[in-house]
Amino acid sequence: MTPVDFRLSTRAQALKASEIRELLKLVGKPSMISFAGGIPDPALFNLGLFQAACHEAFGGPQVAREALQYSTTEGYLPLRQWIATHMQSLGVPASPDNVLVTTGSQQALDLIGKLLIDPGSTVLTTRPTYLGALQSFSAFEPGFADIDAPQAIGADPARLAYVMPDFANPTGETMSRVARLRTLEQARQLNAVIVEDAAYTALRYDGVALPSIAALDANGASDLESTRTLYSGSFSKTLSPGMRVGWVCGPTSLIRKLTMLKQGADLHTSTVNQMVIHQVAAAGFDDQVQRIRSVYRSRRDAMLAALARYAPPGMTWSRPEGGMFVWAELPGHIDAAELLQRAIRADVAFVPGGAFFPDGSGRNTLRLSFALCDEARIEVGIFKLCELIGHTAMAKAASA
Amino acid sequence: MTPVDFRLSTRAQALKASEIRELLKLVGKPSMISFAGGIPDPALFNLGLFQAACHEAFGGPQVAREALQYSTTEGYLPLRQWIATHMQSLGVPASPDNVLVTTGSQQALDLIGKLLIDPGSTVLTTRPTYLGALQSFSAFEPGFADIDAPQAIGADPARLAYVMPDFANPTGETMSRVARLRTLEQARQLNAVIVEDAAYTALRYDGVALPSIAALDANGASDLESTRTLYSGSFSKTLSPGMRVGWVCGPTSLIRKLTMLKQGADLHTSTVNQMVIHQVAAAGFDDQVQRIRSVYRSRRDAMLAALARYAPPGMTWSRPEGGMFVWAELPGHIDAAELLQRAIRADVAFVPGGAFFPDGSGRNTLRLSFALCDEARIEVGIFKLCELIGHTAMAKAASA
Repeated sequence: MTPVDFRLSTRAQALKASEIRELLKLVGKPSMISFAGGIPDPALFNLGLFQAACHEAFGGPQVAREALQYSTTEGYLPLRQWIATHMQSLGVPASPDNVLVTTGSQQALDLIGKLLIDPGSTVLTTRPTYLGALQSFSAFEPGFADIDAPQAIGADPARLAYVMPDFANPTGETMSRVARLRTLEQARQLNAVIVEDAAYTALRYDGVALPSIAALDANGASDLESTRTLYSGSFSKTLSPGMRVGWVCGPTSLIRKLTMLKQGADLHTSTVNQMVIHQVAAAGFDDQVQRIRSVYRSRRDAMLAALARYAPPGMTWSRPEGGMFVWAELPGHIDAAELLQRAIRADVAFVPGGAFFPDGSGRNTLRLSFALCDEARIEVGIFKLCELIGHTAMAKAASA
Repeated sequence: MTPVDFRLSTRAQALKASEIRELLKLVGKPSMISFAGGIPDPALFNLGLFQAACHEAFGGPQVAREALQYSTTEGYLPLRQWIATHMQSLGVPASPDNVLVTTGSQQALDLIGKLLIDPGSTVLTTRPTYLGALQSFSAFEPGFADIDAPQAIGADPARLAYVMPDFANPTGETMSRVARLRTLEQARQLNAVIVEDAAYTALRYDGVALPSIAALDANGASDLESTRTLYSGSFSKTLSPGMRVGWVCGPTSLIRKLTMLKQGADLHTSTVNQMVIHQVAAAGFDDQVQRIRSVYRSRRDAMLAALARYAPPGMTWSRPEGGMFVWAELPGHIDAAELLQRAIRADVAFVPGGAFFPDGSGRNTLRLSFALCDEARIEVGIFKLCELIGHTAMAKAASA
């Protein structure tokens, strides 16, 4: 049968299949050493706490009926209370009214795009930046400008600056306190909203935590009403990504509008998932974070050590203080997307860095996640990958 | 502290708080007789099946880790297979590739709006129509035109026609086979996509099921590739709304694009929820539907009988063959939103019909859900409400 030629929206006409999706499918192959996804190691999920929380949610008829029923768009109150307390511990004077529970932190980005972006308006991001943020925001047809060169902006002054200050996806970099204050000042001058994506913030392995931009923004205030930071948090990297529970915290003037937009997007986040995540977080968030930090720290160390041992001349890489990613630049203008094809045949996967640049640059960069593999597999994978890069560089040099 | 005056997108500037949200909050008050939400009776949830399915999802470490991990955007394959078989039983030759699992059927509407609507393009709906569809689509700034008077359309020919053929929200009406074929023919002439919202389709109490528009569209074909209907299904009215699991089924050319848009919206629907809904549906979907049909049928009969007994002169109402709603028109130009304020003081709630009209008409209409209350409470609630309407009509007549 012949497919119909439908008239799609302008945004949908621009949609392209993402390489990431195809890569994620490879993770399931047992022989594959995957440095690809920003995926937690499932062996670290706290199954006991989840089992207990589910048992509780379905323990008696009354609570089970609540768990299976519709609930309010803003989210389950005990969870919003837990999140508000968590935000307070980070120096952000939040109340539950400042918190909207989202279907993963990805949804926060979608709702924020809906709230702020008109076609042609400008979004400031780092280059590179989180691919999922580019995907979410792109649906509302903005232009992207480099947050470090904002003079290169079109007609509409930026309304939105998106940053990931701690252990950024994809670079693993951490913004200094000065850089955070500069971003805040820049946003104030532009009257822009800052989206502070804190997906990896809990996963610090070295050094001292820096204040979040939300905390700097609220500095000394008793509430968030005159602030401009939307802090986007996630349980995906700490407790479980499959539960799809995240949050956004900010001034109620914005949170209320985001809540209305969420109602049209999915009515509310699954009731039972919010109840379970609340139970698990209340019972053991800090312990869980301590536990996974120590595992991921060793894996980061193993990856950095293997890179130091095997990297060919001209290859450079970041040394992240936390998170899941090392960011590398390849020598000799090697195209990372081409390299990936050969790497996959050698049972190693990563994400080519070009996907993280709004303008398609960065073709000789790649993102390596150390979260999913143990130290021995990291050693083997980095060895294989570096060997492949070395061969490719030599072949390029020979044919040049 | 002074709130900041942010520059919001055009769509966000037009956002208004919904009366529905406030109404839903009243449902929790024990003395309230609520005819307001399209909310299933939680006493009818099959707790045993959900408990068993959760137990299975967390039964062993391997399956529990899968349940808590990221999964693919298109959805859990066994669930997509179950849905494809379900669609086949409705005369729609679907394969799992025709199915995208969504975070409730509300998300399907959001994604379809993103896929098809540019600012100013036209969406055809019945008048009145589902409030949540108006909310979802409005975020993409279309104009709305009456599907029964499509000549009244602006510059852009309609790309999208939204209908709920079975026991529509809010009217309870069912489209005849002839009307379904006419809608299909109209969409073909316009080259528009039909969104067939089947949220209530399983809840038929009388008469014989009519073929879905998706089935009429695919009539005799071996696959869906030349069809134009996106069938939006939901487990919310049959198994559980709190799980937030729905689906959209249609030609792969559209399903693939919707999948890309979903990736930016929330990555994927909760893994464990898909596994649990699959288990529950596989174990007892048909039995559950039989059971709730018989309960809701009695409640519908109780509401229609009470209306026949107590309705004041000039009040008219629909006689639905299924679903959850009776639609009423009030005599003497009574404003249903005003009536609601007094009804709430008398512990009865409903939804004023005006909210379901894109143009704000229908102020003398209201939607009554019979799903949540038992027969005795329906009797009392309808008595109180009719008394209030009668008094209001008399007072209006006296003051005229």
